Amino acid sequence: MIRVVVFGMGMVAAHLLTGVERIKAGLEPWGVPLAKYKLSKGIEDIEFVGVYDIDSYKIGRSVYDICRELIGRDVPVPESLKQLKVSMGIHLGSARGMPIKAQGLESFGGVAEAIDRLVDEFSGFGADVFVNVITTEPAKAFNTIDELEKAVEEGRLSATQAYAYAVAKYARKRGRRVAFINVIPTPIARDPAFVELYRRVASIVLGDDGATGATPLTADILEHLAQRNRKVLSIAQFNIGGNTDFLALTFPERNLMKEETKSSIVEDILGYSVPHFIKPTGYLEPLGDKKFVAMHIAWKTFNGLEDELVINMRINDSPALAGLLVDLIRISSILLEHGVSGTSYEINAFFMKAPGPKGSRNIARIVAYYNMLDYLKKLGAIGL
Amino acid sequence: MIRVVVFGMGMVAAHLLTGVERIKAGLEPWGVPLAKYKLSKGIEDIEFVGVYDIDSYKIGRSVYDICRELIGRDVPVPESLKQLKVSMGIHLGSARGMPIKAQGLESFGGVAEAIDRLVDEFSGFGADVFVNVITTEPAKAFNTIDELEKAVEEGRLSATQAYAYAVAKYARKRGRRVAFINVIPTPIARDPAFVELYRRVASIVLGDDGATGATPLTADILEHLAQRNRKVLSIAQFNIGGNTDFLALTFPERNLMKEETKSSIVEDILGYSVPHFIKPTGYLEPLGDKKFVAMHIAWKTFNGLEDELVINMRINDSPALAGLLVDLIRISSILLEHGVSGTSYEINAFFMKAPGPKGSRNIARIVAYYNMLDYLKKLGAIGL
Amino acid sequence: MIRVVVFGMGMVAAHLLTGVERIKAGLEPWGVPLAKYKLSKGIEDIEFVGVYDIDSYKIGRSVYDICRELIGRDVPVPESLKQLKVSMGIHLGSARGMPIKAQGLESFGGVAEAIDRLVDEFSGFGADVFVNVITTEPAKAFNTIDELEKAVEEGRLSATQAYAYAVAKYARKRGRRVAFINVIPTPIARDPAFVELYRRVASIVLGDDGATGATPLTADILEHLAQRNRKVLSIAQFNIGGNTDFLALTFPERNLMKEETKSSIVEDILGYSVPHFIKPTGYLEPLGDKKFVAMHIAWKTFNGLEDELVINMRINDSPALAGLLVDLIRISSILLEHGVSGTSYEINAFFMKAPGPKGSRNIARIVAYYNMLDYLKKLGAIGL
Amino acid sequence: MIRVVVFGMGMVAAHLLTGVERIKAGLEPWGVPLAKYKLSKGIEDIEFVGVYDIDSYKIGRSVYDICRELIGRDVPVPESLKQLKVSMGIHLGSARGMPIKAQGLESFGGVAEAIDRLVDEFSGFGADVFVNVITTEPAKAFNTIDELEKAVEEGRLSATQAYAYAVAKYARKRGRRVAFINVIPTPIARDPAFVELYRRVASIVLGDDGATGATPLTADILEHLAQRNRKVLSIAQFNIGGNTDFLALTFPERNLMKEETKSSIVEDILGYSVPHFIKPTGYLEPLGDKKFVAMHIAWKTFNGLEDELVINMRINDSPALAGLLVDLIRISSILLEHGVSGTSYEINAFFMKAPGPKGSRNIARIVAYYNMLDYLKKLGAIGL
Repeated sequence: MIRVVVFGMGMVAAHLLTGVERIKAGLEPWGVPLAKYKLSKGIEDIEFVGVYDIDSYKIGRSVYDICRELIGRDVPVPESLKQLKVSMGIHLGSARGMPIKAQGLESFGGVAEAIDRLVDEFSGFGADVFVNVITTEPAKAFNTIDELEKAVEEGRLSATQAYAYAVAKYARKRGRRVAFINVIPTPIARDPAFVELYRRVASIVLGDDGATGATPLTADILEHLAQRNRKVLSIAQFNIGGNTDFLALTFPERNLMKEETKSSIVEDILGYSVPHFIKPTGYLEPLGDKKFVAMHIAWKTFNGLEDELVINMRINDSPALAGLLVDLIRISSILLEHGVSGTSYEINAFFMKAPGPKGSRNIARIVAYYNMLDYLKKLGAIGL
Repeated sequence: MIRVVVFGMGMVAAHLLTGVERIKAGLEPWGVPLAKYKLSKGIEDIEFVGVYDIDSYKIGRSVYDICRELIGRDVPVPESLKQLKVSMGIHLGSARGMPIKAQGLESFGGVAEAIDRLVDEFSGFGADVFVNVITTEPAKAFNTIDELEKAVEEGRLSATQAYAYAVAKYARKRGRRVAFINVIPTPIARDPAFVELYRRVASIVLGDDGATGATPLTADILEHLAQRNRKVLSIAQFNIGGNTDFLALTFPERNLMKEETKSSIVEDILGYSVPHFIKPTGYLEPLGDKKFVAMHIAWKTFNGLEDELVINMRINDSPALAGLLVDLIRISSILLEHGVSGTSYEINAFFMKAPGPKGSRNIARIVAYYNMLDYLKKLGAIGL
Repeated sequence: MIRVVVFGMGMVAAHLLTGVERIKAGLEPWGVPLAKYKLSKGIEDIEFVGVYDIDSYKIGRSVYDICRELIGRDVPVPESLKQLKVSMGIHLGSARGMPIKAQGLESFGGVAEAIDRLVDEFSGFGADVFVNVITTEPAKAFNTIDELEKAVEEGRLSATQAYAYAVAKYARKRGRRVAFINVIPTPIARDPAFVELYRRVASIVLGDDGATGATPLTADILEHLAQRNRKVLSIAQFNIGGNTDFLALTFPERNLMKEETKSSIVEDILGYSVPHFIKPTGYLEPLGDKKFVAMHIAWKTFNGLEDELVINMRINDSPALAGLLVDLIRISSILLEHGVSGTSYEINAFFMKAPGPKGSRNIARIVAYYNMLDYLKKLGAIGL
Repeated sequence: MIRVVVFGMGMVAAHLLTGVERIKAGLEPWGVPLAKYKLSKGIEDIEFVGVYDIDSYKIGRSVYDICRELIGRDVPVPESLKQLKVSMGIHLGSARGMPIKAQGLESFGGVAEAIDRLVDEFSGFGADVFVNVITTEPAKAFNTIDELEKAVEEGRLSATQAYAYAVAKYARKRGRRVAFINVIPTPIARDPAFVELYRRVASIVLGDDGATGATPLTADILEHLAQRNRKVLSIAQFNIGGNTDFLALTFPERNLMKEETKSSIVEDILGYSVPHFIKPTGYLEPLGDKKFVAMHIAWKTFNGLEDELVINMRINDSPALAGLLVDLIRISSILLEHGVSGTSYEINAFFMKAPGPKGSRNIARIVAYYNMLDYLKKLGAIGL
């Protein structure tokens, strides 16, 4: 059994929670990368024990009701989700400007108190793995534990950072080895402060920013071009969608968070810099969660001539990430069992846009996948 | 020095010959996959010593003049190509129906005599590596050397098969270790008869059907989807162009040759069969050598939803293949030096649409590339 | 009230019948071109009285059941369709090679008898308008009534031609003015024989080959380019789908029917010929009725430079045609009221790929639309 | 003879000047909309007499040299352009932030003096038609001549407005009827102040913002959908390029100018508002003047189903506009001959993104084209 807490009850959480329940009930596990292998933890071992959000409309309601509203037109929502209620999380301004009425635990007595309250609640849940899928927020790395702790005292940190800190504190207090999985751009696995904090409690962070949609595909296509020694001349990549995350990314400071994690692949893979425009481009409500991606790449081929490639996609944003999370939950639990702590580049390199630890290189996903399989085989965590 | 003979003086040969000369003169070797590594044979070691064709308009003329006509509008043609003249090759109906006046050596006394004449000419050239880039032709594998030799006697073989046989005979007669590189669909590296024939003379065949354009990209994209366990629902891939090869592929029996080598990737990589339409689709003269590719792939993602991807490309067909040939020439020469004979799956898997030997599986190109690098490193053929 | 008979109980008929019933029940009439104008006949005036098919699996069953099977996954099927049953139609080999068990009235005593039986049945229905949406079939124009009547005697005509002949005979026998709407490529409105036959009975044929999907859009895009005097260099248009019509078009003689009606727009609109490839390209079952279209157009712009345009579409094939049929039914009934007979270029030019009468020119749809509005306004048939 | 002055010696001017000279020398006039008709003014009647810019690198140099630098890699530049030199224009901050060293006449004594100096220079040129193609600048309409004249006194106007004012003053002073053609977003033909100013001197302004590239095509595609009564659900349109105009549009206040003129088409043509994202999206230097456009449109078709369309283009931005300017120059000269003054909606509706006068509706370009032809025929200005 893997007991999971989710931060952020949005579209990704809705797909993660309903998808896992539906797979338990017989749905084929398409979209779960390692479903075709035999891992020592199965999908049926995942149990969701807690969900946090700061939208006052959601707090206290059942996950079932919220999933029905968010994705009920597209998928059937299992009744088993009626028992799970949304708890109040930490806000710290992470939803500032968004069209919701936000309310955070810290408003009842400060950040330190809110963190302590979370630690108590986590203990009540007996939780093992924590998944962070709140809306993209502005945030910077602390780099040292000292800086981090000073920030906690002064309340100068983002919601994700507060959650990650609370989880580590819970691990220390309960003597429990836990995992924190961060699939938004806030630096956690890229922040040496958090990696060290988790290492000290024999726990693990995985992150940052889950690699779904256009970025990992771009990585593989750039590798494809690099292998043929084609000289890439320019890359344009547009993304537009109608979910909360695209709305959030119309705020420049959030967009910047995303642009950084998206652009780093180019030079990492090609080995030289290329003029590029790779950004979440706009918000268009009717597209909903199925974003539209357009990409143009031009290159110089043999004998001095030029080729070009255009890609257009319609991708369900949230289910893609939810599918990755199913494996990240299982893998993080397995890593803990095998005594891994801190973070794991082998895992992050496949699953994350900005793989931790700090300074790690992006590589083609196809290569990262086989590296990860080798790593898991050596751990003895995978069979066929 | 690697002394190279080319069969088929079309667009690919034109780009290969001018491109190599231009690189010797300082052009950056973009489009040559391994140019960024240090191989024991350099691009400057390549010397073209003979060129064959069966178009009576080309026979006897200088390669310089033909290159000017074929690609002179797009690239400058080096004067160094003025010395090289086109020799008459073997026809055997390989250009039947094409809008040229074809003439083959076999018309002066039969196939066996034509082969002997080629053996003499190869000896005169002192050739090491032979590259086959004639127009796609209908042909079937012989499977045994007996069947092959009977076919030679009776003149029942294709032009490519006759060339490959002549090259092997030349190797035996002169005691010279040689390589035959086949980048069209005719089964040579997939034909156990030819692999064994070459093995006996300590020589090597590489093939079949050079992997440029849409097929290797499709392979990598399918691998990308497979790694995320997305269930591919359908694949449509259209190709249209205006070069001689597209004209040839309007003949159903030639198109079939291509369809086979293109379609085999799907099940090899995904591990299950998917309804697909993958074919050279038509001939449109104004597109010239820069073909237009359109591809549509739909899949099932996590939680039962569907995504889709569309790719459109404008690709210079012939330079892409010419760039691969530069490395195939160098690698085959290196393999001979290291005593490899028969064929080499490690090399074919990256470079070929239908990699020999017979029964070999297609794998993602990104994976095949790293396998090939490992293989070449173990041979001691590659540095950084 | 407009009493309508439909030939061919496939996807188009299913969407036409359910769509009209749903609009009567309150669905917005999107996809019906003139729904925003006030025509003297409303959509609610349409009543379906008979449906014919030659698939023995469908004959005798209710339209409701068949619609549920064909499109029930995508749209709710109104119960009002339970009363309507499928009658046996004329086969004449129109479904030869298709994967169905076909059975035609002519197998019980010849073509002339089958036609007489239809005439009797039409009388029973009291039908006014007849819609032909059978699968694309090979057929040639007769040009004269004599040739047509000789062919009827000898049974040398296609199913569509037999239906159109039966309808004209019914009009003559009952002294009733009727309309025959042909939206498949068989030449009816392009065949002077049928136009004259209908003129003699003060009735009307509209046709041929309903203009949905890529062809009318191509027409408007070519007009767009022509208006800027851009020199079109080449046009490639691929279509692939998974409905019965795409399956039928894998038979070369049927594909040819379609290619003719699709290609005629190019020279008609541009005023010069352009190399083009415009064809139904393949069958891919999982795409179902939602076809994939890819189009590439290149042109020369001012100062000698070249531009290019790529269009990709996912289009529901059958509903698009069904939407046009709703207006064709209303308009043909209105034309009859206003004494129009023979055929009507003003209407065909907007709705049809190959507008009758014979020799008519294709024009940009945007222009044809305004011409049609003017024509209908002059007739007094349209208000705002 | 039509004596033409050009404001803004950038890419558009370079293509306009070289293109007209090349057509005079025999190049086919592709890209000039009305070249296939016989207008009373021919392309050979156009003579360029003056060119203005505020880039100190360009001022005083020959148009030939500048054209060589700007477009000499793509097209041959006629030597006839060696005689024409670039004069110093008015800056007024129009190039603020751009990577050039800008210098304007107003720096030598104020705006009013600069305008007077221009009036003198125009007199020296004996100019008839003035073309404004400076970089997109922020600007607002004045609405009344009083406001405009107050702004001139106080120097509170944009460069385009100063040029347009100077041209009107020149017309009044010399008693000469002239035309001012504005193909950038600054409101001139949409500003009642300028229309009235020109009307008073029996002269004409045409504008605003030349309709090339994606916007007019979008207009025609939306009309295509509207004619079939398809309910458009969303429109996304991305534009990225590497010319000066795209660089300028990375400044938010300039981008806003463009967004307004681009977005107005949607509701004008469809008759209802649709969520849309239509903007110049980014700057990517290697794309140069050949921009990349990606567009996604989704709609509801008959029977409640959804379709979608994706368009990708590579378009040479500047030649397209230059081709339109050739006709705008000819037409404006013809309008003057026929006594037209103020502005002309019939002409603007086809050529402009934001057609003047103020409050004018955008219509489908295909319709606007035929309206314009009718108008010109009635004037007696066009033959076949």
